[in-house]
Amino acid sequence: MTMKNTATLLINSPDRKGLVAAIADFLYRHNANILHADQHQDAELNLFLMRVEWDLQGFDLPVEQFEQAFSAVAERFQMRWQLKTSAKKPRMAIFVSRYDHCLADLLYRHQSGELQCDIPLIIGNHADTARLAEFYQIPFHVIPVTRETKAEAEAKQFALLDQHDIDLIVLARYMQVLSPDFVMRYPQRIINIHHSFLPAFVGAKPYHRAFERGVKLIGATSHYVTEDLDEGPIIEQDITRISHRDQLEDIIKKGRDLEKMVLSRAVRWHIENRILLYANKTVIFD
Amino acid sequence: MTMKNTATLLINSPDRKGLVAAIADFLYRHNANILHADQHQDAELNLFLMRVEWDLQGFDLPVEQFEQAFSAVAERFQMRWQLKTSAKKPRMAIFVSRYDHCLADLLYRHQSGELQCDIPLIIGNHADTARLAEFYQIPFHVIPVTRETKAEAEAKQFALLDQHDIDLIVLARYMQVLSPDFVMRYPQRIINIHHSFLPAFVGAKPYHRAFERGVKLIGATSHYVTEDLDEGPIIEQDITRISHRDQLEDIIKKGRDLEKMVLSRAVRWHIENRILLYANKTVIFD
Amino acid sequence: MTMKNTATLLINSPDRKGLVAAIADFLYRHNANILHADQHQDAELNLFLMRVEWDLQGFDLPVEQFEQAFSAVAERFQMRWQLKTSAKKPRMAIFVSRYDHCLADLLYRHQSGELQCDIPLIIGNHADTARLAEFYQIPFHVIPVTRETKAEAEAKQFALLDQHDIDLIVLARYMQVLSPDFVMRYPQRIINIHHSFLPAFVGAKPYHRAFERGVKLIGATSHYVTEDLDEGPIIEQDITRISHRDQLEDIIKKGRDLEKMVLSRAVRWHIENRILLYANKTVIFD
Amino acid sequence: MTMKNTATLLINSPDRKGLVAAIADFLYRHNANILHADQHQDAELNLFLMRVEWDLQGFDLPVEQFEQAFSAVAERFQMRWQLKTSAKKPRMAIFVSRYDHCLADLLYRHQSGELQCDIPLIIGNHADTARLAEFYQIPFHVIPVTRETKAEAEAKQFALLDQHDIDLIVLARYMQVLSPDFVMRYPQRIINIHHSFLPAFVGAKPYHRAFERGVKLIGATSHYVTEDLDEGPIIEQDITRISHRDQLEDIIKKGRDLEKMVLSRAVRWHIENRILLYANKTVIFD
Repeated sequence: MTMKNTATLLINSPDRKGLVAAIADFLYRHNANILHADQHQDAELNLFLMRVEWDLQGFDLPVEQFEQAFSAVAERFQMRWQLKTSAKKPRMAIFVSRYDHCLADLLYRHQSGELQCDIPLIIGNHADTARLAEFYQIPFHVIPVTRETKAEAEAKQFALLDQHDIDLIVLARYMQVLSPDFVMRYPQRIINIHHSFLPAFVGAKPYHRAFERGVKLIGATSHYVTEDLDEGPIIEQDITRISHRDQLEDIIKKGRDLEKMVLSRAVRWHIENRILLYANKTVIFD
Repeated sequence: MTMKNTATLLINSPDRKGLVAAIADFLYRHNANILHADQHQDAELNLFLMRVEWDLQGFDLPVEQFEQAFSAVAERFQMRWQLKTSAKKPRMAIFVSRYDHCLADLLYRHQSGELQCDIPLIIGNHADTARLAEFYQIPFHVIPVTRETKAEAEAKQFALLDQHDIDLIVLARYMQVLSPDFVMRYPQRIINIHHSFLPAFVGAKPYHRAFERGVKLIGATSHYVTEDLDEGPIIEQDITRISHRDQLEDIIKKGRDLEKMVLSRAVRWHIENRILLYANKTVIFD
Repeated sequence: MTMKNTATLLINSPDRKGLVAAIADFLYRHNANILHADQHQDAELNLFLMRVEWDLQGFDLPVEQFEQAFSAVAERFQMRWQLKTSAKKPRMAIFVSRYDHCLADLLYRHQSGELQCDIPLIIGNHADTARLAEFYQIPFHVIPVTRETKAEAEAKQFALLDQHDIDLIVLARYMQVLSPDFVMRYPQRIINIHHSFLPAFVGAKPYHRAFERGVKLIGATSHYVTEDLDEGPIIEQDITRISHRDQLEDIIKKGRDLEKMVLSRAVRWHIENRILLYANKTVIFD
Repeated sequence: MTMKNTATLLINSPDRKGLVAAIADFLYRHNANILHADQHQDAELNLFLMRVEWDLQGFDLPVEQFEQAFSAVAERFQMRWQLKTSAKKPRMAIFVSRYDHCLADLLYRHQSGELQCDIPLIIGNHADTARLAEFYQIPFHVIPVTRETKAEAEAKQFALLDQHDIDLIVLARYMQVLSPDFVMRYPQRIINIHHSFLPAFVGAKPYHRAFERGVKLIGATSHYVTEDLDEGPIIEQDITRISHRDQLEDIIKKGRDLEKMVLSRAVRWHIENRILLYANKTVIFD
């Protein structure tokens, strides 16, 4: 795992001629060594989406001056854009309940260097995963949630999230529905894993319902959380085959492997600034 | 493709001790050379399901006497069972509208020997696929359907189906909903292909809705037709990956390949007597 | 299937700063409406590869003047490049022996508009597929090949290929090895399908050897033909799962579906100018 | 995860009429409640393979008397057979080097109840994974291996394996080749994970060679270890798609996920007595 010192620019813009030339020219004039560039045009919505990553070694514009320097180009083309640098790692909080497979997977990948982020805290509404957190040396906070104490619990969560300057919240099989207020505070910054192939089996007990219906494949879906339950922009999905030999218990077991893979991919893409959102969909620049 | 002369017994029974011993003993006493045997137990529903195929060469019981000979065993264990022989090929009718990819695939596989059935006729509500039928030398009948003429059209269809002694009807992207009366006449003998991963996108225009929703995988589902639209027992499903680069047109194109594979597998399994139904689900003995 | 009138530029160049800016600027100055652009950088080999497709509607440079106009940019960056237009469809010849599943699939996709090319002729070393060619109204030529007559047969093939101005040769399970002379005449313009997951099972009878070895997955590989048998640049691969229940006959049957899918994808990508070659590898701009 | 008290009988026999009847009758007479039964016939080799699992609750034959009671049936049909009970969990040793992803996955699945075995020890030729072993409370032994000390190191390993009565050895990315003597001591009881789609890329550095060759899919293979390197019976294989965007580092990362899945499946099937071997192949009764 080589350490990089790069900047990544994400652009969402009306599609107009000269756009790529203007961006490329800007980067060239500042001596950017482009490492990766990817773009997408949506003809129907007349949208231009771009991700470009370059080496900051040799780039003659200090990051803190980028906004000012780039603003002329950005305004000319009415771009929405954001710049991220590898030097400033995103800060991620993980929310968890009792099932620990997604948490274990995320922590392992973080430790192995696959997820380039900081994880200042884990919040559980149960204490079951405390020992796992301890092994990976991540502070673990238990905040129980009941229907009556939900607002109070969320207030405690907000305090912790603020205190640790959290950029991204990952719901690793966190079995509580967040309040609309919570969701609004972290737009496009909460990733959930739903254990079905959305939009099939929205809501509770998807494996039970998949078993009932007799499907031949089960799935998992990672998505950004919005106010509408299980309706947010889908980041990644995958499936695995089942047969009549798989009882509910087997489906749940197979599903665990899906869930952790599908969630970890989504988290990595988010951290690596590979995701652009539009029209309740995601573009993944992989 | 070696020609076989075999019998296949499908059994659906309450699960009781001694069942396998009784069946195995019966077949052994009649000198059956068992080629394939597969069984499944559903512990929750206390069901025993079995498929056994044997060589009729050397079997000392004429097929026409099987029922009488087997009845003692069957009654003792309250079995539901059916016997099929490879000598009596199922007779299949294909219904089609304008899209011809599923039809072309089925006819190709039939000609190549992969589908061991007879196809006495194709019924289209449009004439578009007549030339394809002619190439494969299958009689093609055009029966237009409108809302007003539906009953009349189905009457014509019934006449043809009866006349040709049809066992199985395959809806190869046939864009008409069959009447309840039609469905009741052919219970568990009508196979449809739906161009989504059921139960996602039940009903009309599933690709359009998949595109809208921003899913990362599209699917197709073959199922037996029941009175409830898209709710019948699922036989087979498969998916393919899509990305933001896939416009609706690309999704439809990728979907075509899925549809024909998923439908052809279901048809083959039905023809080879590999499907057992229970609790609105299928067991596929592959 | 909407008709497009586009140009596609493929670029293979040493990676140097300002490259993208120069290309984007060139296209912008000539008023190109870019539809798709994709690029890839190989850091290790310091290579820059690009595919850009634009609408010729409104482009102010006639195609026949492109080379002269673009030469300054191209020379400055030492590019190798090629320009293709959708108006000039590639001309494809299909070579076939007895197995017809790949041929049938290619012809079906051509007819349905999925493969935007002309197919002026099919050459078989057996006559088995003549009727299929006739159905799709493609001239079919039988040129038998024996060890003794190979040079003579190839001479006849060359004459036909020249006469029909063929750009691309697809070996659709053509069971003859082409001579080095043949291969040299059509560099990177012959696509073969090999019925294994290369580099496993190079050479003859791959399914037999896969069955012998007891693999759990079988594969197919489409690749450009080079002088070294089965060693050319891989375009596409796919696999399907098998089990102990699959006898050799079943493997061959499952393999057929793989072969045709994997070959058709490769042919489509070639026709749509999505393939760039370097270091005996392919970049697929999909 | 419900606790079961079952017996599993694995049978490998010449295929003869009356075999199933004899086995089923034997089990019925002793009042076995059969939970799962699966069989396979290899017509070419005239082999019959069977796995049958029943509840010991109500079975009237004590396990220790099974051999004597069953011997008449077994001898009559020249069966090779083995009986396993869920009460006696297999004892598994894990060998590891520096890479810990497979080890971490196995230990997690063991702890979560997915792998029903005992793990009395882990042997590493490096100490890197000691902390992971400690977290899961499995004794960890470091036995360094050099070319000169290999025999001595294996002697130490044998002592530990004997002392702990080990049934199964899992090489979880253990980067040492076992001596023929070692392999012979544990026939069909050593499972390895090879990081390629065998038989492609036998031997060292398969990912490097896959990257060089430009394959579009990478794979992993779990197999029983035999004297011939990477030539033992394949238990499981899987693949994942790669593209030109994947550099060697990405391939290695994607491969890790494959390796652990493919190894864990093999280990689970072995532990659950689902694997029968013949003709250097495996039958997986899943």
